[in-house]
Amino acid sequence: MSIPKTQKGVIFYENGGPLEYKDIPVPTPKPNEILVNVKYSGVCHTDLHAWKGDWPLPVKLPLVGGHEGAGVVVAKGSEVKNFEIGDYAGIKWLNGSCMSCEFCEKSFEANCPKADLSGYTHDGSFQQYATADAVQAAKISKGTDLAEIAPILCAGVTVYKALKTADLEPGEWVAISGAGGGLGSLAIQFAKAMGLRVLAIDGGDDKKQLCQELGAEVFIDFTKTKDIVKSIQDATNGGPHGVINVSVSEKAIEQSTEYVRNCGTVVLVGLPAGAVARAQVFAAVVKSISVKGSYVGNRADTREAIDFFERGLVKAPIKIVGLSELPEVYKLMEEGKILGRYVVDTSK
Amino acid sequence: MSIPKTQKGVIFYENGGPLEYKDIPVPTPKPNEILVNVKYSGVCHTDLHAWKGDWPLPVKLPLVGGHEGAGVVVAKGSEVKNFEIGDYAGIKWLNGSCMSCEFCEKSFEANCPKADLSGYTHDGSFQQYATADAVQAAKISKGTDLAEIAPILCAGVTVYKALKTADLEPGEWVAISGAGGGLGSLAIQFAKAMGLRVLAIDGGDDKKQLCQELGAEVFIDFTKTKDIVKSIQDATNGGPHGVINVSVSEKAIEQSTEYVRNCGTVVLVGLPAGAVARAQVFAAVVKSISVKGSYVGNRADTREAIDFFERGLVKAPIKIVGLSELPEVYKLMEEGKILGRYVVDTSK
Amino acid sequence: MSIPKTQKGVIFYENGGPLEYKDIPVPTPKPNEILVNVKYSGVCHTDLHAWKGDWPLPVKLPLVGGHEGAGVVVAKGSEVKNFEIGDYAGIKWLNGSCMSCEFCEKSFEANCPKADLSGYTHDGSFQQYATADAVQAAKISKGTDLAEIAPILCAGVTVYKALKTADLEPGEWVAISGAGGGLGSLAIQFAKAMGLRVLAIDGGDDKKQLCQELGAEVFIDFTKTKDIVKSIQDATNGGPHGVINVSVSEKAIEQSTEYVRNCGTVVLVGLPAGAVARAQVFAAVVKSISVKGSYVGNRADTREAIDFFERGLVKAPIKIVGLSELPEVYKLMEEGKILGRYVVDTSK
Amino acid sequence: MSIPKTQKGVIFYENGGPLEYKDIPVPTPKPNEILVNVKYSGVCHTDLHAWKGDWPLPVKLPLVGGHEGAGVVVAKGSEVKNFEIGDYAGIKWLNGSCMSCEFCEKSFEANCPKADLSGYTHDGSFQQYATADAVQAAKISKGTDLAEIAPILCAGVTVYKALKTADLEPGEWVAISGAGGGLGSLAIQFAKAMGLRVLAIDGGDDKKQLCQELGAEVFIDFTKTKDIVKSIQDATNGGPHGVINVSVSEKAIEQSTEYVRNCGTVVLVGLPAGAVARAQVFAAVVKSISVKGSYVGNRADTREAIDFFERGLVKAPIKIVGLSELPEVYKLMEEGKILGRYVVDTSK
Repeated sequence: MSIPKTQKGVIFYENGGPLEYKDIPVPTPKPNEILVNVKYSGVCHTDLHAWKGDWPLPVKLPLVGGHEGAGVVVAKGSEVKNFEIGDYAGIKWLNGSCMSCEFCEKSFEANCPKADLSGYTHDGSFQQYATADAVQAAKISKGTDLAEIAPILCAGVTVYKALKTADLEPGEWVAISGAGGGLGSLAIQFAKAMGLRVLAIDGGDDKKQLCQELGAEVFIDFTKTKDIVKSIQDATNGGPHGVINVSVSEKAIEQSTEYVRNCGTVVLVGLPAGAVARAQVFAAVVKSISVKGSYVGNRADTREAIDFFERGLVKAPIKIVGLSELPEVYKLMEEGKILGRYVVDTSK
Repeated sequence: MSIPKTQKGVIFYENGGPLEYKDIPVPTPKPNEILVNVKYSGVCHTDLHAWKGDWPLPVKLPLVGGHEGAGVVVAKGSEVKNFEIGDYAGIKWLNGSCMSCEFCEKSFEANCPKADLSGYTHDGSFQQYATADAVQAAKISKGTDLAEIAPILCAGVTVYKALKTADLEPGEWVAISGAGGGLGSLAIQFAKAMGLRVLAIDGGDDKKQLCQELGAEVFIDFTKTKDIVKSIQDATNGGPHGVINVSVSEKAIEQSTEYVRNCGTVVLVGLPAGAVARAQVFAAVVKSISVKGSYVGNRADTREAIDFFERGLVKAPIKIVGLSELPEVYKLMEEGKILGRYVVDTSK
Repeated sequence: MSIPKTQKGVIFYENGGPLEYKDIPVPTPKPNEILVNVKYSGVCHTDLHAWKGDWPLPVKLPLVGGHEGAGVVVAKGSEVKNFEIGDYAGIKWLNGSCMSCEFCEKSFEANCPKADLSGYTHDGSFQQYATADAVQAAKISKGTDLAEIAPILCAGVTVYKALKTADLEPGEWVAISGAGGGLGSLAIQFAKAMGLRVLAIDGGDDKKQLCQELGAEVFIDFTKTKDIVKSIQDATNGGPHGVINVSVSEKAIEQSTEYVRNCGTVVLVGLPAGAVARAQVFAAVVKSISVKGSYVGNRADTREAIDFFERGLVKAPIKIVGLSELPEVYKLMEEGKILGRYVVDTSK
Repeated sequence: MSIPKTQKGVIFYENGGPLEYKDIPVPTPKPNEILVNVKYSGVCHTDLHAWKGDWPLPVKLPLVGGHEGAGVVVAKGSEVKNFEIGDYAGIKWLNGSCMSCEFCEKSFEANCPKADLSGYTHDGSFQQYATADAVQAAKISKGTDLAEIAPILCAGVTVYKALKTADLEPGEWVAISGAGGGLGSLAIQFAKAMGLRVLAIDGGDDKKQLCQELGAEVFIDFTKTKDIVKSIQDATNGGPHGVINVSVSEKAIEQSTEYVRNCGTVVLVGLPAGAVARAQVFAAVVKSISVKGSYVGNRADTREAIDFFERGLVKAPIKIVGLSELPEVYKLMEEGKILGRYVVDTSK
């Protein structure tokens, strides 16, 4: 397979600076890395934060963003044993980790202090050729639709991990706050596949219809419901056993600590810059609830989430545009006008 | 064994009203209850809340307080099979529960919506004869020092449960915030007995000496330490794996979410009326921490905590006064002047 | 509601003696018991063991067997708070337990040394009126089909508990050995509802068709497969993560320790008198497998299994006969000629 | 640091063939490996199996045995980031693994199908210079006694892992079958450090004294006890919650399934060629016990076990001989005459 010296990519040189679609060099994989010919890449809200630089984690500059890249392995370093040329592979948020700290040792690689992040500290998937640590790169079965799977690599894995973090038993209720959005609609589907009963929370009849079609048994419209806590507790015979806060509203998070069932678990999964989670100590203790932060999945979570996708149990509605159109997608995200998940085709 | 018709007890008729030491009737056990001749009872901060009525849970009136009573079984109802007359028994916060709701079914009796609480919704241990559901009453080995064990029945079980809730492995670090107080000093001892390494947080050299004598490896004086988060993380090579917030300071709780190790657990165990637990969502997610409310122990936790006590591994320093002096003890508690654990002798 | 003094029941006076369908007295509930007008009762292989007396647990004599009784509460003892007259209730294998030993305390009531067993140490559901400890009796929603739910009370709860004991994640593989029988066919349905992938093992095309209709993805016919271990491992990409041994064949059990995936769990759930489970120590250690005994469910397992049934996710094919015909059903069981689950109608 | 071309080592060319102490080439580390100047190496029973070739896993030939090597890093491959020259490092049984299979992903590296084993499939620590995958090599604090720590690297980690596999709570009872031997005496110490109560099983007064000195509360002499099951259950008020079978006697293993407490766990940890673990199915189910195979620890287990050692909580009595004397040690092992743990000094 012949690999070019240069390629198309979208790069920016300073936070908030121009997003330039241009020719950039093709990177060379290190001994432990694979080089992936990215075919499609999902666009995530995190990409906006990386560009703006408004998170308390420093970003690499200049930077090629993107961390939901799906493509084909075209080269590999000398030490790579788990990928062959021609295999399908995914570039995900966690590009690589040290594998020897206490967190990596326990499979909490995302919490590795030396975690290397695609589209953040490592050039990501908004280019035609991207590198990834072979041990962390996602394995994708040949023949899989690479555009469809792209959003699974971050959005899918993230909500799947959040559901695992809620530590629920099949047959229990999970509430998904912000259920009608990109993450939420994936969360509904994973929850169903895991045998959970879903109560979806969002606003508007379109969202209601979407959530119910995806499998939610109950929909709570927060724009129309007077007493949200009571309504949710009534609908679930005492409150959901777990809550996935895809919504990053501070009020929604605090409410979730109120309506969650005794001994239940509230999961925080979004990454709003500056937001604070609040809970009444008295109620938290008497109800014995847990509030857990859930970050991105590890290698096993990724493999499992992809397996649910490949078995046809979850699907993200996507809108495909050319990589050259990425700057406009950022603009839509910034204006809060985005609907559904955008996926860029790196060939256009 | 002859049981009198009346007895001495301390009773109040309205919240904040006079605490009267007087003759009151001896209660009659129901078919499922035992009647305990209370010899000693610990005095807990919760007793102050019950008297004031400042918690969001309604209290029975008139009320005999107290929920750390240790004594001898003198009568039992027709359905009681697990106690014999003459056995030692403990009256604890959870006097009884329904045993058939989903929480009781899973051994979360403290979270039972129909939980009956000693010294709160059920006359408690500040009297010479008190009743308790036989299934919930604590079993105490004959020959045990009934004054010494009294504080174990609530304070001891509560911190032991909190440590179990932190879900730590032997060899891991636990920070105890408020380590020099009554609950904290018990927490240090239980933590040691569980194979944990203890970092104690409190203020002043007396507290430092006490904590170190009880087994804390590290003492952080919050009155003298400039950067508490950094100091704690440095002393524990990255932060404690768990934190027990015996202190109910909002600031201390929020700090604990900062210094806790990645993937670690912050436990809330005190019951401050109105306080709010806060955590940065971003950090909670990226660090993947858990914040858990821990209430009181269930039957198994109680049995286990008593076993640690009876094996000599934990001991609460106590100050014994007569039951008739209880009103003064309340006054000291209200003024924040109490040091150590008061235990009342019901015969005086 | 008027309760008669006598009723129809099937009773035997010595192990292996005649099973007499006759008039017997209606029992009186103790203070903690409910009296259930049993409408239908499932017939279980355990009933045969109780009659024969071939288990290493002594049986009450004379005995009314049966432990899958579904009916209506017609009376209750003075201490019963969780049932009202007219409620639907189920009589299950665990009639009552002490609620105060270390096993009851931890919700392992089935392992209580004083467990009282329906149709074994306590007259069971092969009569029109039977008693049960109110705390252990199963709650059934009004309007539920009492004939259909009967087998759920033991067979259903038992396989559901076994699946929980296997401790699997949704998306993992479970093998069910003996999948085409009464327990096995319920196990397939519960497994599907729990998000598991099912490999069914049994013999014959009828069984194959049944298993596949119920949701098994793979069927292994042990009568036709040369290398069962290899076939199962190939079909599941390395072996199932868990195995439920409904079959009590010693050979099948030993094989399951061979084909189970590394780090997987083999569950023993049947109760063959005298059988021995064997595993190669070397392989068990190197593969790090677990072999776990799973007995009957506790109160929570029962409530959950009933919920799956009431939500329409599991169903046992039943054959209804009159209670008077029960002796013939025993004969069929003894001859190994039984197919499906017999349920007796106590009114006939 | 100057590294020689040749070194002293003990090598054999065929199973059961001569163990030759001679000059052999110093190996060159691969990009992911470190080269360790082994100072001391423990000798383990597994080394005997590797030499004999009597296990169902093929062994590399010719082979340098040994997998408890402690030394100093003298060279490292280009990709190694977690060790510096001069660091202390340990060579352990698991020399390396693929890091990308489902077992490695979940931190079950020992169960990796491609696991590379020191002194078995990879030349081990019975030489002055040995290689190890940097990610799997153990980190040892500078200044640690390298002779003392050697047996911790396999024997210590293995029993620590077995104790973790038993999944016990502090305050519970653990029985250690074969407690007076090398593994057993380490197991007693780890168990104590983990807050467990220890019942030791072995034969003879010397073993009794040793076990009690190390912290066992109860000693059962199997050579003098008539009813072992009853004696153990009486001494532990119902049976130990967990059993660590360091002894590989089939009879001892079967007995352990009998005396273990209801709902308890029996751990298999030895690797006897050909032995079979047996348990009565009926009892296993009614008692709801687990039998678990525990292999060697992973990276986290290793780090933790070393931490217990470095904190002074566990210590293995060792006997140091020169590497040149290793063949005699094998002979003693083969004759079953070995007492305590032999450690070879590679400089002699």
